[in-house]
Amino acid sequence: MTQPVPAAVGDSLADVATPALIVELDALERNIAKMATLTGGTGVRLRPHAKSHKCVEIARRQVAAGAVGVCCQKVSEAAAFVEGGIADVFVSNEVVGRKKQEQLAALADRAHLSVCVDDADNVRALDAFGRKIDVLVEVDVGTPRCGVPPGEPTLALARVVANSRHLRFAGLHGYHGMAQHLRTVAERKAAITGATEQLKQTRALLEKHDLRCEILTGAGTGTFPFELGGGLYNEIQPGSYIFMDADYNRNAWDDQPRFEQSLYVLATVMSAAQPGRVIVDAGLKASAVDSGPPIAVGDGLQYVHASDEHGLVLVLQESARPKLGDQMRLIPGHCDPTVNLYDWLVAVRGDRVEALWRVDARGALA
Amino acid sequence: MTQPVPAAVGDSLADVATPALIVELDALERNIAKMATLTGGTGVRLRPHAKSHKCVEIARRQVAAGAVGVCCQKVSEAAAFVEGGIADVFVSNEVVGRKKQEQLAALADRAHLSVCVDDADNVRALDAFGRKIDVLVEVDVGTPRCGVPPGEPTLALARVVANSRHLRFAGLHGYHGMAQHLRTVAERKAAITGATEQLKQTRALLEKHDLRCEILTGAGTGTFPFELGGGLYNEIQPGSYIFMDADYNRNAWDDQPRFEQSLYVLATVMSAAQPGRVIVDAGLKASAVDSGPPIAVGDGLQYVHASDEHGLVLVLQESARPKLGDQMRLIPGHCDPTVNLYDWLVAVRGDRVEALWRVDARGALA
Repeated sequence: MTQPVPAAVGDSLADVATPALIVELDALERNIAKMATLTGGTGVRLRPHAKSHKCVEIARRQVAAGAVGVCCQKVSEAAAFVEGGIADVFVSNEVVGRKKQEQLAALADRAHLSVCVDDADNVRALDAFGRKIDVLVEVDVGTPRCGVPPGEPTLALARVVANSRHLRFAGLHGYHGMAQHLRTVAERKAAITGATEQLKQTRALLEKHDLRCEILTGAGTGTFPFELGGGLYNEIQPGSYIFMDADYNRNAWDDQPRFEQSLYVLATVMSAAQPGRVIVDAGLKASAVDSGPPIAVGDGLQYVHASDEHGLVLVLQESARPKLGDQMRLIPGHCDPTVNLYDWLVAVRGDRVEALWRVDARGALA
Repeated sequence: MTQPVPAAVGDSLADVATPALIVELDALERNIAKMATLTGGTGVRLRPHAKSHKCVEIARRQVAAGAVGVCCQKVSEAAAFVEGGIADVFVSNEVVGRKKQEQLAALADRAHLSVCVDDADNVRALDAFGRKIDVLVEVDVGTPRCGVPPGEPTLALARVVANSRHLRFAGLHGYHGMAQHLRTVAERKAAITGATEQLKQTRALLEKHDLRCEILTGAGTGTFPFELGGGLYNEIQPGSYIFMDADYNRNAWDDQPRFEQSLYVLATVMSAAQPGRVIVDAGLKASAVDSGPPIAVGDGLQYVHASDEHGLVLVLQESARPKLGDQMRLIPGHCDPTVNLYDWLVAVRGDRVEALWRVDARGALA
């Protein structure tokens, strides 16, 4: 059921079958290099989140630029990266259920694997597979998701890991998801300062009980400068910085490092039969809308509504009106779930298709 | 990049790797039979929309129950159904661009193919492929999408089709997408009455000019009783009725035929570390949220927020609190884009997996 490649190497953009996911290589390369520069020499390790790109080729490029490995969210996603030769994979999430833990344990025979926990029974179940897996306790630092509260509950769970037969207590995972899209720099900084303070006290508590936190990991594209400079985290996990999206572009960045938009949905005008609007061939199945509709690139154009297979684009200036068959670039509202809709990333430089990259972990939900 | 099957035939639900898309066969079969009963003997042909299920096995069952074929929205989607043996496929959409028209023409050698148009140059481009394809003029009946206005513009375009060398003018396509989710029966009826009146006048205009409209097609799950009983449409295209979803369930149905929920995302509680909430393993990549988050099945549970791989479920009554590892059913907000996230449909009867069906046209965007 994998879809055929939407283009061939050497094609011009006009030859790409739309809707297609395109990545501008110049911008992607600058984003990867910029993050390498920002993290290099800081003593904080970069482990980009691969849930954003799901693409082994991009992971390889990140590792080549100094990343220590990648993060994944699912065991099936981790499997795609281990299969692709990434030697160090952190499943920054809980793995629940016998079959999934068995798969995780099997992957640990092929690569360095680490994983999060927030439940003592889950730790014991994983231990039963007899693998020396690095285990991090996930700490709830303010986003209502997984994780145990900081302080005593974290200590209690870390002890369960440390007292397990095979697992190794490796440290703490404190990712503040909600903070990434707080709009002002001050809000994001305040959220991470609060999270860092909680983790600092928790680390001190654990050390008082002879539990060493080798790794303190977290951070995303919206907040990583604060984790990087906060003196506590020694690993960061930004993912979206390689692509960016409309929602991250709506954040204020001020003096913070900002990355370039490299990812687009390439669409085609499939109807120009009516004044004031055109319809493009990219709707809900071509661009995730959880963070709003995609942004049409071009003055006088406004993508206002996605239905399953159609995008309604208002033509605000008739001089900007595209013709039937014209291509249009869309900036996805949210890059991660948009990438997950495609089997192929069309890597372009200028007008030329330079490579077709598999979205190796597309649909890796389990 | 096709994902492995999430279960085996004969498994119990507890063995299914989550998140997974499950369809209850009893409810699906009743939905298919009910639509067959409602349309049988009316003289109005049923051509279900396959964009909802993208699954050849379901299309076969619909045809076996009396459907004349299926609708598709994309050429690549149509290709999956022709490949699967469906003999009559209507691409209820415009096909723009040389390559896609070439693919459509090639499919017309293997099955009965029909397609929509809303542009004269597009008609001429399609005609150049020399196939006897049935062409319907898409008429804008109130949803701001594709289609020419009713009346003279429709007549002008129908003439271009009728005067083409190879194409056959087959009739009018008048689908009122926006009407499907108007909440009251009265609103939906008023919208379709208006659309029907416009089409009736347009048909009369065309017939005055010796252009016979053999087919008048449209309708969806929310409005089909009105097209079915309106005396004008002779083909209807409902899709979602086989599955239903949270948004269709929010419509008022009163005395109108109502279908059963048969489609669920099966999720697992992956974190139960905090009071007041549990986290399930199904987020944005497992259930489309364009029509709101999925609905958790079970009293005292409320799915309130999806992030990429997590669903935040509030536990409103502690007595309803699921345990770590428990499964939970979610009713997707919108079935079509949710189905498109999965490679497999797990067909279940009671607690038992009866079949694994490919989502053959998953990702068929082009």
